[in-house]
Order: sequence, then structure tokens, then C-alpha cells
Amino acid sequence: MFEPVWWEADGEPAVGYLDQRALPQEVVRARACTIDAVVAAIATLAVRGAPAIGVFGAYGTALARTLALDDAAFDASLARIRAARPTAVNLAWAVDRVREAGGSLAAARAIHDEQRAVDRAIAQHGAELLPSRGAVLTHCNTGPLATAGYGTALGVIVEAHAGGKRLHVYVDETRPLLQGARLTTVELAQAGVPSTLIVDAAAAATMQRKDVRAVIVGADRIACNGDTANKIGTFGLALAAAGLGIPFYVAAPRSTIDFARRDGSTIALEEREPDEVRNAGGGLTAPAAVDVFNPAFDVTPGRLVTGIVTEYGVARPPYEDSLPDLATRPGLAMLTPAAR
Amino acid sequence: MFEPVWWEADGEPAVGYLDQRALPQEVVRARACTIDAVVAAIATLAVRGAPAIGVFGAYGTALARTLALDDAAFDASLARIRAARPTAVNLAWAVDRVREAGGSLAAARAIHDEQRAVDRAIAQHGAELLPSRGAVLTHCNTGPLATAGYGTALGVIVEAHAGGKRLHVYVDETRPLLQGARLTTVELAQAGVPSTLIVDAAAAATMQRKDVRAVIVGADRIACNGDTANKIGTFGLALAAAGLGIPFYVAAPRSTIDFARRDGSTIALEEREPDEVRNAGGGLTAPAAVDVFNPAFDVTPGRLVTGIVTEYGVARPPYEDSLPDLATRPGLAMLTPAAR
Repeated sequence: MFEPVWWEADGEPAVGYLDQRALPQEVVRARACTIDAVVAAIATLAVRGAPAIGVFGAYGTALARTLALDDAAFDASLARIRAARPTAVNLAWAVDRVREAGGSLAAARAIHDEQRAVDRAIAQHGAELLPSRGAVLTHCNTGPLATAGYGTALGVIVEAHAGGKRLHVYVDETRPLLQGARLTTVELAQAGVPSTLIVDAAAAATMQRKDVRAVIVGADRIACNGDTANKIGTFGLALAAAGLGIPFYVAAPRSTIDFARRDGSTIALEEREPDEVRNAGGGLTAPAAVDVFNPAFDVTPGRLVTGIVTEYGVARPPYEDSLPDLATRPGLAMLTPAAR
Repeated sequence: MFEPVWWEADGEPAVGYLDQRALPQEVVRARACTIDAVVAAIATLAVRGAPAIGVFGAYGTALARTLALDDAAFDASLARIRAARPTAVNLAWAVDRVREAGGSLAAARAIHDEQRAVDRAIAQHGAELLPSRGAVLTHCNTGPLATAGYGTALGVIVEAHAGGKRLHVYVDETRPLLQGARLTTVELAQAGVPSTLIVDAAAAATMQRKDVRAVIVGADRIACNGDTANKIGTFGLALAAAGLGIPFYVAAPRSTIDFARRDGSTIALEEREPDEVRNAGGGLTAPAAVDVFNPAFDVTPGRLVTGIVTEYGVARPPYEDSLPDLATRPGLAMLTPAAR
């Protein structure tokens, strides 16, 4: 299992990370010793996945504290880290939490530890939703690489498999950056879960022809009504699942829920460089001058979401009732295992 | 405008074709002088698009006649051409029609000429369906390269644009072979129609956020109830369009309708090589050993199709009534322009 993010124990203060852009062909580990490097690692998707960005941002905040000459410089650094990617809420949440603890490394480590506990709880709650046997479909990457823990949607699948459910996972390749093809296939192989790669456009046909019993994805930001910002393509999957009568689940930590946001209509949806689409696999595949619309995320309406799995259990519609209720629950690190 | 298929006027008997795999980076023209070469050009998608394959198969049949020593050899060649790709009905239809005419080159040329007339009529009927201004979305490639005429779905769009409608076209890149990115963008630019390229997974978000007013695609085989086999991804688009209340049109010549088939459940859906999915843009992007499901086509239920545009006009549900009625209409080449 790959560790995506860590604090470098030796040498000058630095946040270590796996450069996920090079996978699966190469395993490249790198160190971010400056705020520029932290921001670049997030913006270029060397580190990606909403929870993993949160953990990385937490360590980045501890790094910023060691580098900053005064509080103003510290805050300026944090503003830059927070803005490195706009859609995921976990990043700002983690930065703010470590800042409140004075930028201490211990606070960053606590977020990392808590992520593992949270992921474990999500996996256990979610595994009960999956069928005892049959096909499931997922999108993008939501495993350990995406969370710095055990994963969200993929953690659910791996947990269900480990618990004896006989699942076969169809993995959307997830253009333009192919996180499904490059990362999810590797993580499922490492976990021993049988999987098959498909192009994104094959999802609806696969759901129908391969008797997919559930679709499960992660999230980058969830509004109080269940509207879910997630990797581009999620909305289409949810529409297809609804049209075919297949349950559609979202798995994400509470830190992904934006309790201040009533619905998804105002979520900032990052648009990325046209060349991500003009190129495939490193080579130019479209006319160099072609206009491109490259949204990194879309918003799936809560009405299309069958259930939202968090570390506290499975929230069900109406989400306006079930989600806000989670805001005041004690953090999972504070709970005894039995109370989880 | 690129000509995808032609009879070579000079030298030994041969069918000329544009090798569409090299576009848009290179314009490669090739000659098929043997049945092996004809079959390979179809199977490798050097020539693709259901109607263009039909025209190419027609010329291939004329070539087979010149090469065959006797009727048995001729029929064996035709069986191989017919089987080069299983899903499109136009190929077998065109081969059979030229065979009935004794394999004459004139019969092949007549099919090519008729394709142009048919495409023109489809474009004119379909253009009326599109809004006078706004966004439309299409998938794969259905322009001149796909039909050896003016195109089906793309012909409709170009005709509407030429008639003064102010359209903006969102083009799905169409993984794995990127016919949208490589071919449709080029054809729209040549026709002067504004367009924007998206990844396939962005289609639903684009429909919603860019106020798409209609989705229009081609077809490889249509059953009598309107069930439509077309490029993988079409089914998902139709589900998304239905979920968002956007009209979903299919444009195809009558030769695409399989009048012997009541519904789409028994249509043979070609599955292609795993490496088309493991690779993107020529480079390996997934683990080399990953299992792949690579269906080239899916079947969209007729109930999701708002209208089917043929050279005879727009067929509407219930297709069980409107489509079989077309079987006995005189061929378009037989009609005077006024009667079309």
C-alpha cells in the first residue's frame, strides 16, 4: 500500500509525498520544503483526493509555521495553501484546524491519525450497503492514495471484500487525468479485489449488461441537502444509476460536509487547463487550437443520492434533516472504538 | 473537407481511403488492393462510421469481383468483408446490394452517390429540430468522414448552421479512440461551426451548465422499436438527457434500420481490444495486466429517443409504427428532388 503523504522525519522541515502523476509506471517520492512546493503539489495533482489534500494541507500548515518569520507571514502562507484548489472543503478545514492549534505538528499528525480512524469507520458502515455478491462500479480514485488513510468509497469496497463479500469492481478510467486507470486499478490489485477497467462512457452499458448492483463514489464537498461536488462524471453516473434503478452511494468523511452551504448551487467548481483534454496519455490527440471546457468537478443533486456514508453511519434522505445533525457530533478521535 | 473513401481511377483495381487513425496530426491516404486490406481497414477503424463502412464495403465488393476467380471465391470474400465489423448493419446491406448487381463498380458508385443524397435529405429534415440558437451536444464522429457523404448527426448541425441557426457544439472526445477529439472537432472547424471539446464524463455537467438544448448522435443499427446501437457512451447520454429533460435525437440513413429486428436485445455488440483502453494517446496509462471491458457500442432504448431522422423525415414514437413504415418506401435515388 502506498503512503501518499507524510512528515519528513530527517533533514530540514518538509512534507513528503508520493507524486501520483507518475503512477502506475513509476513510484516517485518528493519533499516539499517551501510553501511554493506545497501549493504546487496540490495544484498539479501530485497530491490529490479531498481527504489526502486535507492531511497534506495540515502538514503544510505545520511547515508554514516553521518557515514564517511572523504571524502575518504565517497567515499569508495559509491563504495560499487554502486556495491551491477551490472545490474540496477538507483542505481549508484542515488548515484552519492546525492554525487554531498554533501550527503545531502534533495537530497535523492528529488530523492524519483521525483520517485513518474516520476511514475505517466509513468502510465499516458502508460495507453493509454493498451486496453479498455481484458487481459494483466506482469512479476516480478514493483509496488510500486519495485519503492518506484507508480510503472512502474504495475503503468501503475493500472492507466488504475483506468481510467475505464476493464483489467485482468496474472502474471508470476517469478522464482527463485517468485516476481510475492509473491509481484505483493498482489499489484494488494490492487489496486482492477483482476489477475491470472501462472507459467513462461505458459506465451506463456496464451497469446494465454486467448487472451492477451499486455505484459508490467519494466527494469533494457536500451541501446540507446532499448535493455532492465530486470528480467530473459523477453526475452522469448518478443520472444513469437513477434511470436504471441502481442505488447510488457517496462515501466521505464529515469534514467533506459544508455545513454552511444549504445546497450545491454556489459551490466553486474548478476548471482546469485545456491541455489536459487536448492530450491523452502525454500525446496531443486533438487539434492544438480547439476550444475546451474542462470542469474538474460536477454537482450531483442530493435527490439522486441513495445514501451518504460518513464515519457516523449512513445518512439517508431527506438530507436537510440527516446531514446538519452531524455538525455537532464529537470528533471521531474523541470517541472510544465502541461508541463509533 | 476530407473524402474518406473512393475508387482508385488509376493503376490496378483498388479502393482508396483516408487512414482516419492518423488524424488530426497527419493526413494519410492508402489503397486497398486485396480483400485482406479491405477487411483490415474496416477492422482497425482506418475507415469507420457505419455509412462510410457501407460505401467502402460496396467498393470492396466491386474489388472482390475483379479479384475472384469464380463465384465461390467471390462469395467467400464477401463473407469476410461482411464480418469485418459486426454491429453496423450498413456494411452487410451494401455488400449484398452490390453483389445482387453482379459486383459491378457502377452499383458501388450508385451507393456512394445515394449516400450523398441521403445525407443531404437527413441534414435538411434534422436541421428543423435544432433550436435557432444555443448549445447542442454530440458524440463520436458523424460527419463526412463517417458517411462518405455530408454526415448524419453532424450533417444536421452543419446544415442548421448554414441555414442561419446560431449553434455552439459541445463535442464528446469519445474514448477510447477519440473520434470526437480527432475528427469531429476538425470537421466542425472546416464547416465554420463554433465548438468546444469535453471529456465524455463532462457531458451531463455540460448539458446542465451550458444550457444544452438538444443532443444528436448517429447510429450503427436501429431496431424496429427505436432501440439504437451506437458508439459506446450513447446510452449514458440518453439517460442524462432524459433526466435533464433535453431532447435526444438520432440521425441515420434508412440503411441503418434493421427491419428484421423487433428490438435491440439481440444486436451483436462488438467488443474490442483491451489495449485501446489501457492506452491513451499511444502511451500505456494503466497497469499492463489490468482486466478491461471494451464494448465499442451500446444500445439506447427507443423510449429514450425523442426522434429518429432519416432521409424520409423525422420518425417519432411509437417507433413500432413509424419505423417499419419506411421499409417499403422507394430508394431516395429513385425519387425526384421535389418528392424527397
